[in-house]
Amino acid sequence: METEWTTKIVETAEKNQGPFFDYLRLQSVSTQKRMIPETANYVKQLIESFGGEAKLLEDLGGHPIVYGFFKAGQNGNAEKTLLFYNHYDVQPEDPLNEWKTEPFEPTIKDDILYCRGVSDNKANFMSRLNAIQILSESEDGLPCNIKFLVEGEEEIGSPTIDLYLEKYADLFAADACIWEAGSKDNEERFTIDAGIKGIAYFDAWVDSAEVDIHSSKGAVVNNAAWRLTHALSSLRNADHQVTIDGFYELMTPPTELEQSFVEKIPFNGEKLKENYGLKQPLITEKTTWSPQAALILYPTMTISGMLSGYTGPGSKTVLPRRAQAKIDVRLVPGMDPEDVYDVIRRHWDAQGFSDIELKLITGEKAFRTDLTDPFVQTVLESARKVYGEDIVLNPNSPGTGPMHGFGEYLSVPILGSGTGWAKSGAHAPNENVRLQDFYQGIEHMIILLKDFGEKE
Amino acid sequence: METEWTTKIVETAEKNQGPFFDYLRLQSVSTQKRMIPETANYVKQLIESFGGEAKLLEDLGGHPIVYGFFKAGQNGNAEKTLLFYNHYDVQPEDPLNEWKTEPFEPTIKDDILYCRGVSDNKANFMSRLNAIQILSESEDGLPCNIKFLVEGEEEIGSPTIDLYLEKYADLFAADACIWEAGSKDNEERFTIDAGIKGIAYFDAWVDSAEVDIHSSKGAVVNNAAWRLTHALSSLRNADHQVTIDGFYELMTPPTELEQSFVEKIPFNGEKLKENYGLKQPLITEKTTWSPQAALILYPTMTISGMLSGYTGPGSKTVLPRRAQAKIDVRLVPGMDPEDVYDVIRRHWDAQGFSDIELKLITGEKAFRTDLTDPFVQTVLESARKVYGEDIVLNPNSPGTGPMHGFGEYLSVPILGSGTGWAKSGAHAPNENVRLQDFYQGIEHMIILLKDFGEKE
Repeated sequence: METEWTTKIVETAEKNQGPFFDYLRLQSVSTQKRMIPETANYVKQLIESFGGEAKLLEDLGGHPIVYGFFKAGQNGNAEKTLLFYNHYDVQPEDPLNEWKTEPFEPTIKDDILYCRGVSDNKANFMSRLNAIQILSESEDGLPCNIKFLVEGEEEIGSPTIDLYLEKYADLFAADACIWEAGSKDNEERFTIDAGIKGIAYFDAWVDSAEVDIHSSKGAVVNNAAWRLTHALSSLRNADHQVTIDGFYELMTPPTELEQSFVEKIPFNGEKLKENYGLKQPLITEKTTWSPQAALILYPTMTISGMLSGYTGPGSKTVLPRRAQAKIDVRLVPGMDPEDVYDVIRRHWDAQGFSDIELKLITGEKAFRTDLTDPFVQTVLESARKVYGEDIVLNPNSPGTGPMHGFGEYLSVPILGSGTGWAKSGAHAPNENVRLQDFYQGIEHMIILLKDFGEKE
Repeated sequence: METEWTTKIVETAEKNQGPFFDYLRLQSVSTQKRMIPETANYVKQLIESFGGEAKLLEDLGGHPIVYGFFKAGQNGNAEKTLLFYNHYDVQPEDPLNEWKTEPFEPTIKDDILYCRGVSDNKANFMSRLNAIQILSESEDGLPCNIKFLVEGEEEIGSPTIDLYLEKYADLFAADACIWEAGSKDNEERFTIDAGIKGIAYFDAWVDSAEVDIHSSKGAVVNNAAWRLTHALSSLRNADHQVTIDGFYELMTPPTELEQSFVEKIPFNGEKLKENYGLKQPLITEKTTWSPQAALILYPTMTISGMLSGYTGPGSKTVLPRRAQAKIDVRLVPGMDPEDVYDVIRRHWDAQGFSDIELKLITGEKAFRTDLTDPFVQTVLESARKVYGEDIVLNPNSPGTGPMHGFGEYLSVPILGSGTGWAKSGAHAPNENVRLQDFYQGIEHMIILLKDFGEKE
């Protein structure tokens, strides 16, 4: 679909491809502390090279946070400020052998750009900068003030961002916030999230002995792998219901209004199965709630990793001394990560699994924006101009981010907009963004900023 | 305890330390096919350098088998032949970070020799060769004919040895066989095994999707790790009883005679806990049978490895597409590995786990020697001269080896004798043998060979 902006967008994006690709090449894997200071500095310089002011905040520990500021143009509305939240860190690139391109070498094939971190969320950040450049170079200039908060710990649960938001609430003060992410769904509908789920991510492990033992001793010696297997099994039954006393009771029950929004959200299970090559039925075929409600309104309980004993080729007849697991729990409003820890700990203790160690390594609360805020309409209307009428609004996303602190310390409405699609593969091999979606993302930002600046 | 042989044994062992250490340095990890032909050739040359004939058998596939032969001396009994069974392959050395020495660099500290494979079973093989050299150099010469069968696939379940035993039954024909292994128990009692358990070792795995998926989708998408966890849990309950229909029914019930031997076997659970640093109660605190019966007369069901998703430091919010496990089942007489496969497969299918893949990668049947055979007394009496009266005879060991084919094709009584101790750490980091045990092992072989040659 050609619009008045199309030519300018493609020209500008191509001109800025060099700095974009250099940004993608920076292996900013936060969980492994790879190239974090380099990438923070690169983001600062990038903002400056697009004409903004920028500085690094690192006085409260953690990976540096980049603050950025672009002043409204002479014809713009200097009374209004939009805050962009983005993050420069990415997920690890493993499993390496499943990548069809080099994970950190941006590669375009059939108008799709592949690279770890491109969808989540380096392309989103670049779409903001391209839009700002196009508007700055336009006759009217930038329609409002723009601030950036670009952090480097999103993929490890943003452990320090609330400290910075509290201390620097004035620096980041704004009238509204556009969140880092967003994508088209299986049916190519543009999707906007007005909140996020929280997360409680745990390391669980058990030691059964000081040494690995010859497996013939399995006749008498207990085994960490068996202990962990039984302990994990006790957390969720074969019908996928969490079986921990008090777990679901932590939830603030969804309101009727929230439920009515969730009912309108389209869901295509067949398409989902096809996109991911699912070999199992959806778990919501066995739960009492719908897939939409599961994604938006109910918590999850996921085993994200397990390791014990020998896992190489062939056989090793060993009785492992240790077994470990990663447990990822997505939270809805009302669920405090510490409370989730408590109910699991109490459950295991009561079930005879007090030998299983449990550590909360990431915790974030959920957040939902008030859907009656006028900014919601501004974002929806600007999106319709780019993406058409059939737009989806989620009261919150099934995913997680550090949104809770923005609501608490900045008191802004928060909505997401991003350049992903259903097969972007965030957190998976062959992560990608379609160039066409990237151009549309730039256009959405242009129109949104203009509309936002014009409104009282 | 000084004996007539002590000085000669220590002298000879020290003289042969160079070739012994070179043998230990060969990283003959069969499951990874490392240095297998080199090690087979080295064993052949070693036998030749000790004055024997040797050749490699490899016409039936698999890793080469070394045949060795030493003729009875002029004053020896050329009518009698003892066969030594040993293996030159070893277990993988991982986990590497738990070794206190280089895994494949023989290192003596406090009269203990550390190296992967030293206890299982390179030191045993060297104890045979040292004994042969001492007897050959003695006035009476070698007291009987000696044959060796040294294979290279013991640690992967000896998949080809039965083929060789069947074809080369005449070449390996003997009157009796000394098995590769043996050790002192927790109370320093020398232990002789007159049989072995069998094994069925499985790869189990499940694929839930074609790609790893962002864990927020765990609200609707099933997860290989959960599938495998529930499937594994269904195999054995928290009281450590195997819960597979028909599993225990495969056993040939133990005879009263076998049970009476088992009742005499000492068992010190506290010592076992101390040796391995066990952090869990023994599982026989919950089973209806005793620890001795569990080790000798009942099958086991062990998870030897598990792997799924992200297992590195920190968090990765992924829903794994694959989960895999290694399952190690020790068998008693009557249990055919294929039948064990069948009962697990049927169990999983009946429980709704037909998506879990199962592959038998190693299978060996159990074997028990007839304890009324006179060779049993010869071995016991010679052992008492070296190790004292308090010797333990197990109707079969809790461990596994390819003994079944020796019984079937060579029709020999088979007893074990080796140089291990309770903390030898076979299959574990810091595998070791005490030098004093090594010297005693040589002495036992000297006396056994003399007694064996003298008997009609």
